[in-house]
Amino acid sequence: MKFEISSELGYDVRIPTTFIFSIQVSKSPNQTILEELLTIDPYIPVEEFISASGESRFFRLKADYQAHFSVSYKATVDVKHQMVNQLSSDNTTPVDELNTDIIPFLFPSRYCQSDRLQRLAFKEFGQIENPFARVLAICDWIFTNVEYLSGSTGTSTSAIDTLSERAGVCRDFAHLAIAICRALSIPARYFTGYAHNLTPPDFHACFEAYLEGKWIFFDPTRLAAVNGLVKIANGRDAADAAVASIYGNAAITHMNVSCQAMDPSFEPFLYQNGATQGLSYQ
Amino acid sequence: MKFEISSELGYDVRIPTTFIFSIQVSKSPNQTILEELLTIDPYIPVEEFISASGESRFFRLKADYQAHFSVSYKATVDVKHQMVNQLSSDNTTPVDELNTDIIPFLFPSRYCQSDRLQRLAFKEFGQIENPFARVLAICDWIFTNVEYLSGSTGTSTSAIDTLSERAGVCRDFAHLAIAICRALSIPARYFTGYAHNLTPPDFHACFEAYLEGKWIFFDPTRLAAVNGLVKIANGRDAADAAVASIYGNAAITHMNVSCQAMDPSFEPFLYQNGATQGLSYQ
Amino acid sequence: MKFEISSELGYDVRIPTTFIFSIQVSKSPNQTILEELLTIDPYIPVEEFISASGESRFFRLKADYQAHFSVSYKATVDVKHQMVNQLSSDNTTPVDELNTDIIPFLFPSRYCQSDRLQRLAFKEFGQIENPFARVLAICDWIFTNVEYLSGSTGTSTSAIDTLSERAGVCRDFAHLAIAICRALSIPARYFTGYAHNLTPPDFHACFEAYLEGKWIFFDPTRLAAVNGLVKIANGRDAADAAVASIYGNAAITHMNVSCQAMDPSFEPFLYQNGATQGLSYQ
Amino acid sequence: MKFEISSELGYDVRIPTTFIFSIQVSKSPNQTILEELLTIDPYIPVEEFISASGESRFFRLKADYQAHFSVSYKATVDVKHQMVNQLSSDNTTPVDELNTDIIPFLFPSRYCQSDRLQRLAFKEFGQIENPFARVLAICDWIFTNVEYLSGSTGTSTSAIDTLSERAGVCRDFAHLAIAICRALSIPARYFTGYAHNLTPPDFHACFEAYLEGKWIFFDPTRLAAVNGLVKIANGRDAADAAVASIYGNAAITHMNVSCQAMDPSFEPFLYQNGATQGLSYQ
Repeated sequence: MKFEISSELGYDVRIPTTFIFSIQVSKSPNQTILEELLTIDPYIPVEEFISASGESRFFRLKADYQAHFSVSYKATVDVKHQMVNQLSSDNTTPVDELNTDIIPFLFPSRYCQSDRLQRLAFKEFGQIENPFARVLAICDWIFTNVEYLSGSTGTSTSAIDTLSERAGVCRDFAHLAIAICRALSIPARYFTGYAHNLTPPDFHACFEAYLEGKWIFFDPTRLAAVNGLVKIANGRDAADAAVASIYGNAAITHMNVSCQAMDPSFEPFLYQNGATQGLSYQ
Repeated sequence: MKFEISSELGYDVRIPTTFIFSIQVSKSPNQTILEELLTIDPYIPVEEFISASGESRFFRLKADYQAHFSVSYKATVDVKHQMVNQLSSDNTTPVDELNTDIIPFLFPSRYCQSDRLQRLAFKEFGQIENPFARVLAICDWIFTNVEYLSGSTGTSTSAIDTLSERAGVCRDFAHLAIAICRALSIPARYFTGYAHNLTPPDFHACFEAYLEGKWIFFDPTRLAAVNGLVKIANGRDAADAAVASIYGNAAITHMNVSCQAMDPSFEPFLYQNGATQGLSYQ
Repeated sequence: MKFEISSELGYDVRIPTTFIFSIQVSKSPNQTILEELLTIDPYIPVEEFISASGESRFFRLKADYQAHFSVSYKATVDVKHQMVNQLSSDNTTPVDELNTDIIPFLFPSRYCQSDRLQRLAFKEFGQIENPFARVLAICDWIFTNVEYLSGSTGTSTSAIDTLSERAGVCRDFAHLAIAICRALSIPARYFTGYAHNLTPPDFHACFEAYLEGKWIFFDPTRLAAVNGLVKIANGRDAADAAVASIYGNAAITHMNVSCQAMDPSFEPFLYQNGATQGLSYQ
Repeated sequence: MKFEISSELGYDVRIPTTFIFSIQVSKSPNQTILEELLTIDPYIPVEEFISASGESRFFRLKADYQAHFSVSYKATVDVKHQMVNQLSSDNTTPVDELNTDIIPFLFPSRYCQSDRLQRLAFKEFGQIENPFARVLAICDWIFTNVEYLSGSTGTSTSAIDTLSERAGVCRDFAHLAIAICRALSIPARYFTGYAHNLTPPDFHACFEAYLEGKWIFFDPTRLAAVNGLVKIANGRDAADAAVASIYGNAAITHMNVSCQAMDPSFEPFLYQNGATQGLSYQ
């Protein structure tokens, strides 16, 4: 499926400030960039780099004192989602067989304090044997029990907060789901991307769980069709995959994001009750 | 300097349980392993692996239902610490020039919520220009204001907790220091190792800050001579570098650790007031 | 019903230290003290006082440097519990009709952060119309979802912590229940007392909710029969009704508590599913 | 000193909602109300009451579905502040001599977790012998280390948060000061009132500490002259003394507050370094 995506971010810079952006779509055998254009206006040189894991692309730039600038990005991307069958078995990959580069996604992280949620996770989801069903149940629970409420949370909000306050945005939904998965020894990682027809238009955050040797995609907000996503970055949580990390002092002045499937016959795919097929972005 | 180190850990296992241990010393041009012996009694096969960054060694094993086993490790290691001069300049590496694999050590992590400590960090340490002096001041502040108190904290204790409660152990001292460094845009990472003559004998945790292109070692507990350490692992915080991560259910039955410099003329090195030379373990 | 209760607490005192104890049973038309004996050994004068609300008795004493002393208390008490019928209506006393001295029991307190639990309370219990049934459902939920685990919590543990960690002791169960009640605009207060045949013997904590003009008793731990309790104190939470508040430095050396119904035919009363009668200690 | 004060609050009410307001000035031998007018527009009957301690006045009203109403209050008040001398001795009232109705102001409360701040309080302020000087030092420390920043905090923000984040408004400054005082066994209570010429005009929050048998007034924000305050309410913290507690669903539409000393020669009084006289509102 081909997508046209674009984003634009503008900033007022008060002191010399370094920005690290993660808004470019990632490259993989399943996600081919057909066209891509990054523009900084007025021109500032950028340095591109990828994360150690290769999952995420970043670019860095330094803006001077009292600058105003905007970053705009456009791309056409061909995404080949993979349907993964036979997720209905009662086996997940046990920790002693996990590929060792997956292990860090079992560890607690800044916004996903899985170390504190083990009893809760087992009480609520421990009786579900099949791991794919278990992650679907976690997503359902969060969708049912947490209210999507713009502006209710901030950059310091963590899974523990969301569990108490029961409100948040896509980032908070993903953090809580990841924390519960890890508490159950299911590796889980944060995902940021563009989402087809997201309303209101914005960057989107959700997560992937590692099941039967594949990273399977889940969106506990149900705001995006799982086959309507284009990956920007993965990480342990939002600390690893911020749209913009700012070292200095700057205020955002505007942000526009869009993402459209190019084929008008695009059919959104959402998990149904009792689903046994998962969608992978690997 | 050569060191003889050893450690032994015993466990009672209640259900089939996977262990990931990080107790072997790391290998680097500056740290040569002359001899090494790892024994599991009774015998269980282990799988060794290193972290993606290459900084840390792990081994994994799976113990059966109702097993009792012990892990014992002995090594003779030659550590070449590096003294780093000219840390007295007023420049640190700015974020826009940092090697990109260093950037993740600026991000907040599970136990080091640097995102919440920016005002505190600037209020307390912002007036110190020289970055090495700044990190020394952070260590002094923690040593003076936080009480070393065994048993006062647990596996969920974070930098924010330690800042309020003002008590903790080596792990907590390191987490607080790392969080404050990152809040000031100084990359910092967690360090675990063996420490010469540590009293009482135990594994030790401290941290490294990235200054003038080198990882410089600091110990805010002042319990270990900085030239008396042998590195096991680095990570963002204790989530990445636990001595033992346990997936299942097991209770520790005993732990013995020792570390001795082999040269009886070993002279402990501690930073003095106004120091301009740092010690690196890179 | 008559009860024989006793308690003894011993302390090692390191510096001159003031103690405020709340271990004497409270006096009310429904709770008559037939005999009572308080002994401090060696003798220290005590000053008795009651809380502003009259619900709680305290005594205060000052122990000198390096003293060792013990407090022992014995009483025979006649408790007339009141069964409250007709709790099955769909009406509770609305806030605009509440007696004004009840209003503070709607406010959040140290260990009961009801201000943060409103969405959770309405999501989980908002659909239950009858207020008595609602409080019973809160107790059931806590009994089912929180593990009673001695030593898992401490004096700083709050309702928010228990909600995440899902473990605690009687004090923590009560705090969480109180916080959820208040989030639903049901006044709730903390209760400490002696409990018939509590195993292991200890002081007990539970709570009262204000329904149909009466304080109705609930025990989410289900460890005590609701008709087997003798009241010591009420308060907003454990901050108001600590067994011992210590200003100085002292270590507890021993504690013994016992409580027995004097009539061998005592029949423990526990709420059944669909109960419409509540028990009051007012 | 005479003051003219006024306040007006408007609300849009979405469902039948009960309001408890605390905006009327309190009555005491030192604070005489010369004139007072409370208007609800359109008219809704109100029920006035005072707190159990007599320190605070409240009125309660019930607004119907889809109402819009405003509350306006005007008063002329004569306040006789008391200067308290001889606060320079090294003695404070020890806990064993405190009047028993003062004792609850030693306990931790919702927003003032003094139980967690004992080590911090002793480390930072334990070496100051004189209790009045100690409280002045606490206020100075907060003024210096916490940034006054409108909008940085919310209704769930507590002393522990402010200690980490180092930003807040008058309410947060007061909570942190109260928590530290209580951790040092100095009774402290929250104070809300009107403040002469406060910029921008608003209700004000600060605190009183109990020294030498008097409640002495302190304002760690330094925004108000201590002799320019008119008391509305006292309480353990903001949970007891909210300007408006709302049970239902309503949105504030406007708020205006003013307070002026009537004598044009009013001279603001602020504590100087080394002050030994405190100002009391008792």
